[in-house]
Amino acid sequence: MGKGLPKRSEDYSSWYNELVKKADLAENSAVRGCMVIKPYGYSIWEKMQASIDKMFKDTGHVNAYFPLFIPKSYMSREAAHVEGFAKECAVVTHYRLKNDEHGKGVIVDPEARLEEELIIRPTSETVIWNTYKNWIQSYRDLPLLLNQWANVVRWEMRTRLFLRTSEFLWQEGHTAHATKEEALEETFRILNIYSDFAEKHMAIPVLKGVKSESERFAGAVDTYCIEALMQDGKALQAGTSHFLGQNFAKAFDVKFATKDEGLDYVWGTSWGVSTRLMGALVMGHSDDNGLILPPNLAPTQVVIVPIYKTDEQRSLITEKAEMLKSRMQEKGLAVHFDNRDTHKPGWKFAEYELKGVPVRLAIGPKDLENNTVEVARRDTGEKAFINMDGIEAYVEELLPDIHNRIYDRALKFREENTRQADSWDEFREILDQKGGFVMAHWDGTAETEAVIKDETKATIRLIPIDGKEEAGKCVYSGKPSKQRVVFAKAY
Amino acid sequence: MGKGLPKRSEDYSSWYNELVKKADLAENSAVRGCMVIKPYGYSIWEKMQASIDKMFKDTGHVNAYFPLFIPKSYMSREAAHVEGFAKECAVVTHYRLKNDEHGKGVIVDPEARLEEELIIRPTSETVIWNTYKNWIQSYRDLPLLLNQWANVVRWEMRTRLFLRTSEFLWQEGHTAHATKEEALEETFRILNIYSDFAEKHMAIPVLKGVKSESERFAGAVDTYCIEALMQDGKALQAGTSHFLGQNFAKAFDVKFATKDEGLDYVWGTSWGVSTRLMGALVMGHSDDNGLILPPNLAPTQVVIVPIYKTDEQRSLITEKAEMLKSRMQEKGLAVHFDNRDTHKPGWKFAEYELKGVPVRLAIGPKDLENNTVEVARRDTGEKAFINMDGIEAYVEELLPDIHNRIYDRALKFREENTRQADSWDEFREILDQKGGFVMAHWDGTAETEAVIKDETKATIRLIPIDGKEEAGKCVYSGKPSKQRVVFAKAY
Repeated sequence: MGKGLPKRSEDYSSWYNELVKKADLAENSAVRGCMVIKPYGYSIWEKMQASIDKMFKDTGHVNAYFPLFIPKSYMSREAAHVEGFAKECAVVTHYRLKNDEHGKGVIVDPEARLEEELIIRPTSETVIWNTYKNWIQSYRDLPLLLNQWANVVRWEMRTRLFLRTSEFLWQEGHTAHATKEEALEETFRILNIYSDFAEKHMAIPVLKGVKSESERFAGAVDTYCIEALMQDGKALQAGTSHFLGQNFAKAFDVKFATKDEGLDYVWGTSWGVSTRLMGALVMGHSDDNGLILPPNLAPTQVVIVPIYKTDEQRSLITEKAEMLKSRMQEKGLAVHFDNRDTHKPGWKFAEYELKGVPVRLAIGPKDLENNTVEVARRDTGEKAFINMDGIEAYVEELLPDIHNRIYDRALKFREENTRQADSWDEFREILDQKGGFVMAHWDGTAETEAVIKDETKATIRLIPIDGKEEAGKCVYSGKPSKQRVVFAKAY
Repeated sequence: MGKGLPKRSEDYSSWYNELVKKADLAENSAVRGCMVIKPYGYSIWEKMQASIDKMFKDTGHVNAYFPLFIPKSYMSREAAHVEGFAKECAVVTHYRLKNDEHGKGVIVDPEARLEEELIIRPTSETVIWNTYKNWIQSYRDLPLLLNQWANVVRWEMRTRLFLRTSEFLWQEGHTAHATKEEALEETFRILNIYSDFAEKHMAIPVLKGVKSESERFAGAVDTYCIEALMQDGKALQAGTSHFLGQNFAKAFDVKFATKDEGLDYVWGTSWGVSTRLMGALVMGHSDDNGLILPPNLAPTQVVIVPIYKTDEQRSLITEKAEMLKSRMQEKGLAVHFDNRDTHKPGWKFAEYELKGVPVRLAIGPKDLENNTVEVARRDTGEKAFINMDGIEAYVEELLPDIHNRIYDRALKFREENTRQADSWDEFREILDQKGGFVMAHWDGTAETEAVIKDETKATIRLIPIDGKEEAGKCVYSGKPSKQRVVFAKAY
């Protein structure tokens, strides 16, 4: 079936683009670089939001909302930050339109020029630390554990749905602490929340580690990240957690009275995941027939498709289907009974395959006779006839099994596509012909990193946090190294 | 107590501003006209969102997300729309900053000028109808019942926290239908959802009606609204539901193949409520001691404050309090036990009064002896000693009682402040000396409406939908009128 999707093996990139559009996840808008997230795509994002938000709240975080606009001067306050973000900003210069006197429609009113230009937030450290200055006087005001769900804008010339868009949706956490230790603890707490979410909700295995200096968030002391491997052998950064040290506190003069009556700058963290996760979800599991959604994020977990020829059959099957549906709903399952008479079962099968619904139940006249249902798994395509009586328990157990199966498949793929390279030739050959993660020694310099990127397009995705020490030689320069790092071409 | 709030009777306006800040709902940001919604305020907004979102979903609506940016030319497509919104737009003209060559920090890169300026959405009809053009071909594609939760910007010179800010948060629904009847039905369905939400969740009685032409949404055929009366006698528009007719379909050329093989323009509605509801909530119920929150929207419904002198008392009370807390939580109540040793009970009482927590339980040594708890209602200040054994059932019944009591109080206030005026003198005198809603005859002309506004600052808040017909004479012009309309000064 496949509803006319390109094959991954032939054109991975257009397979992705077409799948995102055909499965009704998102589409390009008429505004350059901005996407429309369609209802089906948005309903998956809502499930992601709900799970992540709960994990934040369970660990003591609260939500708030800070302005969309950042005064231009704020951007310059933290030196590294402005270097990293100024280049790709949307700038508001005026606050009014007017009718053109020469009848050319609406024009920008030149008299409504702002004294200071406003930047659409690319990230909110500056405006939030400027606010924290007023909120924090004493150690008693700490910690502050805030998060916001918001849209941000980073002007992009080359965009791809979900993976890289000028406007995207995300959450950004910004915390303030009395001690370095506490801020570091928070940085790792969030990193673990992100990896738990990726693995337990998205069924996508991730590596955890720290970025090299050149890949670090502009303004952070250290950037920790989770990285996933996509089916085409490219890496995708799925979330970052930054230890900011006292950088933003110093830039915005945020000091606090310590317990022992001293005065110190506040320690900070920031962290975020975005609608990019939607791209990871699509590319992590899906196949040439469409999406494969992990049960925990599927808006519809089970679809029931009736198969009938006569009105009488239809009515008998509908009765059964409604009964099964309500029994499954009582178990908390998200069930849809597609009883439309305007589409044939084959069309529906292909449609739900495309949309990635984890479990499909088909009920035909023979099933009524036998008191069975045909259960099809989206992940493997396996089918089985199951007795109607225990169907809700069967499906309830099937869902975690599907989760585990697609997780294991992704893990196996990653393991098969993680290779060690001990020479420059080997390194280049792997990246050129196989892709995937390459574990190699690196001399720790930005120069070497830059040359490797120039020659292979691969970047250091992360330095494993608890990676085993292993003396070796840099795959490019031959200089000594203590630990392998993870290279890959990346989205 | 009151934590230093101004009294409503002395300075209503600064009472409101101070209360919003001191109760940690919101504050002004350094960016002109934009606010920071603080965690406590945001947690109330989240409860509003959750309830409203559920009401939308229960009536078949789905969420989606459309771009923040609107090309300038889109704004001109619907003639009335551009007149209404062009004047207060934030305009993006550039997409890059750069370092000034003369060392003056960061400047807008003059070479990064956009070919067409982008407007930050003040509302999204234009960008959405431009998208609907591609989504709708046939009656089979209808209806589309979409909503989005988003930030919007309308440049404001005079701003007030929640009531009028340049950036605000809202939901905006945009639906498309095959027939006028269906679109009208949707317009009223949403109007009823809004009034149900106001009355059943916010405990604020509202009037429903239709706007006069001059107060109509720019681009709508008719604007329906809910209006609430604040404690200072001013009206507040709390939500609007617009019947768009075929205006936006025509502006964006959205046609569909009808069932009988014709071709017609699509019928539309749009509707929204915003963080303005937070302002209505504050001004609808609160008093000189702080917020009074309706139980359905209170992040904390019940707070337990321990009263003790010795460590032994503290530990015994804590044990009891934890037990009561978990029994109430099992009933689904949001309970907080404030066992901090850093603040005295009196301080805590004032704090939770300020924050509007509906029910306060105090437990002291005598209560342990008597197996009682002191229960205080925030709305009336009434206190009672209640047996600990049935406390969870008692509080569970108390909450709806509090809801009804504050609703009834607000309704009584509105009734006492709704007056008929049959002469111009009477009309002016009421508005000048008493405020509130004034029911008066109006000749139906925009001219009269404008003069009345000029002379009294009062506007027509709404024309009652099912208002009884009553022949009369316009309170200003003396011309004939068939129905009274509702005038008031408004936020």
